Amino acid sequence: MGKTFIFGHKNPDTDSICSAIVYANLKETLDFDVEAVRLGALNKETEYVLHYAKQEAPRLIEKVEEDVEQVILVDHNEFQQSVDNIRDVKIAEVIDHHRIANFETADPLLFRAEPVGCTATILNKMFKEKNVEISKTNALLLLSAIVSDTLLFKSPTCTEEDVAAARELANIAEVNVEEYGLDMLKAGTDLSDKTITELLSMDAKEFTMGSSKVEIAQINAVDIAEIYKKQAEFETEMKQMIETKGLDLFLLVVTDIIHSNSEVLALGKASKNVEDAFQVNLAANRALLEGVVSRKKQIVTNLGATFH
Amino acid sequence: MGKTFIFGHKNPDTDSICSAIVYANLKETLDFDVEAVRLGALNKETEYVLHYAKQEAPRLIEKVEEDVEQVILVDHNEFQQSVDNIRDVKIAEVIDHHRIANFETADPLLFRAEPVGCTATILNKMFKEKNVEISKTNALLLLSAIVSDTLLFKSPTCTEEDVAAARELANIAEVNVEEYGLDMLKAGTDLSDKTITELLSMDAKEFTMGSSKVEIAQINAVDIAEIYKKQAEFETEMKQMIETKGLDLFLLVVTDIIHSNSEVLALGKASKNVEDAFQVNLAANRALLEGVVSRKKQIVTNLGATFH
Repeated sequence: MGKTFIFGHKNPDTDSICSAIVYANLKETLDFDVEAVRLGALNKETEYVLHYAKQEAPRLIEKVEEDVEQVILVDHNEFQQSVDNIRDVKIAEVIDHHRIANFETADPLLFRAEPVGCTATILNKMFKEKNVEISKTNALLLLSAIVSDTLLFKSPTCTEEDVAAARELANIAEVNVEEYGLDMLKAGTDLSDKTITELLSMDAKEFTMGSSKVEIAQINAVDIAEIYKKQAEFETEMKQMIETKGLDLFLLVVTDIIHSNSEVLALGKASKNVEDAFQVNLAANRALLEGVVSRKKQIVTNLGATFH
Repeated sequence: MGKTFIFGHKNPDTDSICSAIVYANLKETLDFDVEAVRLGALNKETEYVLHYAKQEAPRLIEKVEEDVEQVILVDHNEFQQSVDNIRDVKIAEVIDHHRIANFETADPLLFRAEPVGCTATILNKMFKEKNVEISKTNALLLLSAIVSDTLLFKSPTCTEEDVAAARELANIAEVNVEEYGLDMLKAGTDLSDKTITELLSMDAKEFTMGSSKVEIAQINAVDIAEIYKKQAEFETEMKQMIETKGLDLFLLVVTDIIHSNSEVLALGKASKNVEDAFQVNLAANRALLEGVVSRKKQIVTNLGATFH
């Protein structure tokens, strides 16, 4: 059996990077020939985590090379969020916590999706099922993924299982979850060296909703107003991306990680759908969504229901 | 939380019926309000199993009624094999062992697919994970599903896990696997009271391959020649179904369960694909496929690769 690549989605977040690394470690312990790789640049939060854990970043790949026998997807399943040549490779496994869409295989596979807040929570269980001990470093990486995906347990996607897993992992990693978690999230909001293009792509995902193409980019911040000082520049870039990618909607979601709100900027011919989905009026293309922090649970679901 | 329906695919086989019943039992033990239902008539093999187990058949449904809150799919995921209004209902869980295709959800869910020979093998593990003891009746039902799907361990879809699970379950059920299994499979080949239409639909599944619609019906037999005495009648009916359903290919697979071969009858404008897929020549629309017994692993995969 040849090599297996393990990777998370494009524009990787902390869960996509850390779950790939940790699952590769688990598979290696079980004697598989695997390599964790990544499909994009690290964000500041993930850099903080890897630096803290003294862990190398996975290798960046453009596509799956021909000598790779098969792949394992973590933290995603939708093909448009995966590697460009995903349709040409054998998918051996998927470990994920998202909705299932735009995914298909020719053969049966191991597909494990659970409605929890983070892929890392599922991996924590898998170590136990396989009777493999979690190292201090792996515990820190999994914990970081949970803190990131659940915004330190404040996201509505967070389940009791995620909280319990994080507490266990924090014990093994010997860190104070609240302190470490807040430092980590804050590190992610340091956007000082990012260009507008980078800000719009670093946590962007494309979705098919009805027959429409929708791109949703999310930026975590401690001060929303600070981000929107650059609204005009964002709009110029977003319009260009709508043109290039043929999008019906580009939604930028700026999330206040302290107060758990988001202010969105919507452009494209389907921006009216945002008003319908959240019962708001866009003013200067923007609207505040009170209590909304989760793209998956609060934005994709509500927005998706307005497309047919 | 309202009621949850649990069901397998249309034209249900023994795995689809038994896994629905047994998973409903497990869920009830865990205090969920569930009902096992079925999407079609029982075949003779499943009737034999339920009679032996002194177990009522699940209720037949045409569609999921509006007061049902959500559904759990076992033994399938492709929407065209599921209940007609599957797109209008919330899918809470999928427990399956097939390829994934034509499936999508708006929300995250529990999706557990494993590349094993039978859904029942996964359920056997789930009882252990949940620390619930398997009753004698449930063990017999799960064992029957494994025997059916693996043709008493002779199908290439059969894994070591399936064999191990069947041995465990046979102990609990207190039956001799080989004797009980062969009796059960033979009961399934009693087709004396079936019309041509029933024979073609009792284990038929529709697949999308490339942009083509392919229907594959399978009949288990102890004497292939006996079945093909009615070839002319099969062809008349198959042509009509090709017309009505707009099929590109209708493939009838008659499988000799004793010698593990199949003889196929192929009609439709894509019947040439059958020759390419299996390196055979159709004579009078028929060809013998040596060693082929599994629709999933030997037919769908090879045939699928010839459609683009």
